[in-house]
Amino acid sequence: MMKENLWNNIKQLKKESPLVHSITNYVVMNNTANALLAAGASPIMAHAHSEMEDMMTICQALVVNIGTLDEYWVTAMKKAVHQAQQLEKPWILDPVGAGATPYRDEVLAELLQLNPTIIRGNASEIMALAKHNSTPTKGVDSSAKSNEAVLAAKFLVEKYHCTVCISGATDIILDQDKEIHLFNGHELMSKITGMGCTATALVAAFSAVIKDKVEAVTSAMAYLGVVGELAAKESKGPGSLQMNILDQLYAISEKAFNSTLNLEIKRG
Amino acid sequence: MMKENLWNNIKQLKKESPLVHSITNYVVMNNTANALLAAGASPIMAHAHSEMEDMMTICQALVVNIGTLDEYWVTAMKKAVHQAQQLEKPWILDPVGAGATPYRDEVLAELLQLNPTIIRGNASEIMALAKHNSTPTKGVDSSAKSNEAVLAAKFLVEKYHCTVCISGATDIILDQDKEIHLFNGHELMSKITGMGCTATALVAAFSAVIKDKVEAVTSAMAYLGVVGELAAKESKGPGSLQMNILDQLYAISEKAFNSTLNLEIKRG
Amino acid sequence: MMKENLWNNIKQLKKESPLVHSITNYVVMNNTANALLAAGASPIMAHAHSEMEDMMTICQALVVNIGTLDEYWVTAMKKAVHQAQQLEKPWILDPVGAGATPYRDEVLAELLQLNPTIIRGNASEIMALAKHNSTPTKGVDSSAKSNEAVLAAKFLVEKYHCTVCISGATDIILDQDKEIHLFNGHELMSKITGMGCTATALVAAFSAVIKDKVEAVTSAMAYLGVVGELAAKESKGPGSLQMNILDQLYAISEKAFNSTLNLEIKRG
Repeated sequence: MMKENLWNNIKQLKKESPLVHSITNYVVMNNTANALLAAGASPIMAHAHSEMEDMMTICQALVVNIGTLDEYWVTAMKKAVHQAQQLEKPWILDPVGAGATPYRDEVLAELLQLNPTIIRGNASEIMALAKHNSTPTKGVDSSAKSNEAVLAAKFLVEKYHCTVCISGATDIILDQDKEIHLFNGHELMSKITGMGCTATALVAAFSAVIKDKVEAVTSAMAYLGVVGELAAKESKGPGSLQMNILDQLYAISEKAFNSTLNLEIKRG
Repeated sequence: MMKENLWNNIKQLKKESPLVHSITNYVVMNNTANALLAAGASPIMAHAHSEMEDMMTICQALVVNIGTLDEYWVTAMKKAVHQAQQLEKPWILDPVGAGATPYRDEVLAELLQLNPTIIRGNASEIMALAKHNSTPTKGVDSSAKSNEAVLAAKFLVEKYHCTVCISGATDIILDQDKEIHLFNGHELMSKITGMGCTATALVAAFSAVIKDKVEAVTSAMAYLGVVGELAAKESKGPGSLQMNILDQLYAISEKAFNSTLNLEIKRG
Repeated sequence: MMKENLWNNIKQLKKESPLVHSITNYVVMNNTANALLAAGASPIMAHAHSEMEDMMTICQALVVNIGTLDEYWVTAMKKAVHQAQQLEKPWILDPVGAGATPYRDEVLAELLQLNPTIIRGNASEIMALAKHNSTPTKGVDSSAKSNEAVLAAKFLVEKYHCTVCISGATDIILDQDKEIHLFNGHELMSKITGMGCTATALVAAFSAVIKDKVEAVTSAMAYLGVVGELAAKESKGPGSLQMNILDQLYAISEKAFNSTLNLEIKRG
C-alpha cells in the first residue's frame, strides 16, 4: 500500500458511490447515513426478514453493527450476511459493547463463525471478541488503548481470516501481512455518539470499491481521522464538531488531506 | 390556486399547529420531528398496535413512510390508515425505496388499495409504484428525473384518486385538474438523509390545514424548497445545511419567501 | 440544598462519568446520547430482553421513556426496572404523552407500581399521571403550565414516595420536604424535539452521583436550563440552538453558570 493511493481512493469512492446496506443501531442511523452521503456513498438501512436477501443483492457492502441488537434484528443480520457471502460481497462487523453482556458475546460468537471480511472496534471490544474471559469492558466505551489490543487483533486475523481495525487515539489496521498505524483524529471526537459506527460505515463503503482490504480500511480511517482533526480546529464543542465533520467529509481538498495525513506503515 | 396563497398557508400552519402522526423510518425520525416543530406543527411518532386508532383520533394527519418497514410496523400502518379513513383525515404515503425489493412492492400494493390522500416520492419511486415491471430503482436514490415520471403519476392519480408529488430538481405536483412545477431547492439537499421524508411530513402538516390538496402539497414543497435554497447559500456542506434549514423553517420572512419562490402553474 | 452545590455537582458528574442506561424513544436516542456525552456521562442504549438484567448491572442509573413504546419494549423496561430495584439503583420515569391514549395510561399505571425514584414530565403529563380522568393532553405537547400541576405532583410524591420534576417555562422540583422553582431556559427550546427527554437523561446521570434526589434533579435541570438560555442567545433558530446546547453542555464555565442561574428554594 502506498500513502499516495489514499486520496485517489477517496476520489474513487465519490465517483462510484457504492450502495451500502447498514443493519445498525437506532442511535446512530441518522449520522451514519449522513456521513455516507457526505462522503459520496449511498446508504440503505433495512431489517425486515422478508427483504434481507433482496436488499443485499442490490448493495455492494454490508455493515452489521450490534449496538441495539435484539432477537429479530440478529436474525436479519444473519440473513443479510449469508447473502453477502453467497455473492462474495464484503461484510463488516462492528461489535459494539462486546463484553458488556453475555447475550452480546453469544451473538458475536455466532457472527464470527460467518467470517466477517473486516472487524472494526475499539480496543476493549477487540479484546473482548478475542478472549471472552478478559476484563469486562465499561459498556460501549473503551478504557483500553489500541496497542493493548494488537495481540487480540492478530488472534482474530489468524482465526477468522479477516482484516481488523482497532480504532482509538491511534488506529491500528492489520491483516496477516500488513500493519498500519494512523495518528489522525482528535479527542473531542469521543464526545460525539457513534463516531466508531460512522468509521465502520465508511470502512464498508471503501471495501466496496477497493480490493485490498487493509488499503480500504486505511482509506476510511484516514479520511475520517483527517476530517475530524480539521473539523475540531473550527469547533467549540461536540455539537459544532458533528456539523463540521459532515461539511469536511463533503468538501475536503486533496491538499488539506495530504498535508494532515499522519500514518506509519509497520508491515507490508 | 394562486401563488399569493402560499405565504398565507405557511402563516396558517404556524397558527393552527396541527398534530401530525408519523409512522416513519428510524433514520429520519429526529429530523422529521424537528422540521415539523421548526415549521410550527406538532409531531407525534408512535407504532404500538394497541394505540394506533387512539393516536389517529387525536391527530389531524398521518404520514406512512416505509423506509425501515417490517411486519409489525406494516400492521401498525394499516391500523392507523383505517382509522384515518374512518375519520376522513388525510394520510400521506411516502414509498421509500419502491422497486428496491419485492417485499416493499407487495406492501406498497396493499397500501395503495387503502387510497392515500397524497403520495410523495422521487421519480424512480413513483415509476416503480405505477408499474412494477419498470427498471429497478437504485435503492432509495432516484436516478430518474421528475418529468420522466409524469405519466406514472397521472396513472396513480387516475387509479387511486389521489394527489401525487414527484420531488426532485423540479417538483411536480398534480391531480386530475391541476399541475404545478416548482423550481426551488438546491442540489446539496440530496446530500442530507431524509430530505424527502421531511418534505412528506410537511405535506401532511399542510394537508391538515389546507382543504385543496394540490395547494397543500405545493405550500409544503415551496416552503422546503425555498428554505433549502436560502439555507444552501450560507452553508459549507451538508452538516451546516441541515442546521440552516431548521433555522430558516423557523425564521423565514414573507419577503425572502416570495422573492425566492419560483413556480409555474401548468394546469388549473 | 444550597445553590452553591450545583456547580460542584456538575464537576462531579464530569469526574465520575456514570454509565446511564436509557430505554428511550427512537426519535431522541441520538440527541440524548450526545447530551450525556457532552455533559461528561456515558450513555448505553439497549432493549433486548436477553440482556436487560446484565446491562442494568453494569450501569449506575436507568431512564425509562415511553415515547415510542410497544409491547416488546415495555417488557424490556420492566425487566430493567426490576433489576435496578434489586440493586438499589435510581430509575427515572419519563411519561411521554401520558393521557394521549389509554394504552399509554395502562403502561404508566403498571410502571408507577414499580416506584420510580424520580418522575420528570411536563405539566400535562404530570396531571395525566396523577388523575386519569383529567382533561386529555394534546399529544406530547404540554398546553398546561407548571404551577397548574403542583397538586398532581404532590399526589405522586405522596403515593409513590418519589421525587417529581414538572418541567416548563418554570421547572418545579419537589418531594415531601423540599420544593425548588427554577426560572432558566428559553422558549426556543420547545422548538427542538426531545428537550424533555434530554432533561430526563441528565436527571438520571446526576441521580447516579448525587445522593439527595431533589438536589440531583435540580442540578440537571439548572444545567440544561442555563445552557439552553446561553445557547439561545447565539442561535438563529432551533437548528443552531441544538448545536449550541451540545457545545455549551461541554464547555460552560463556572462563572457563566453561576451568573445565569436563577432559582428559588420554596421549601427545605
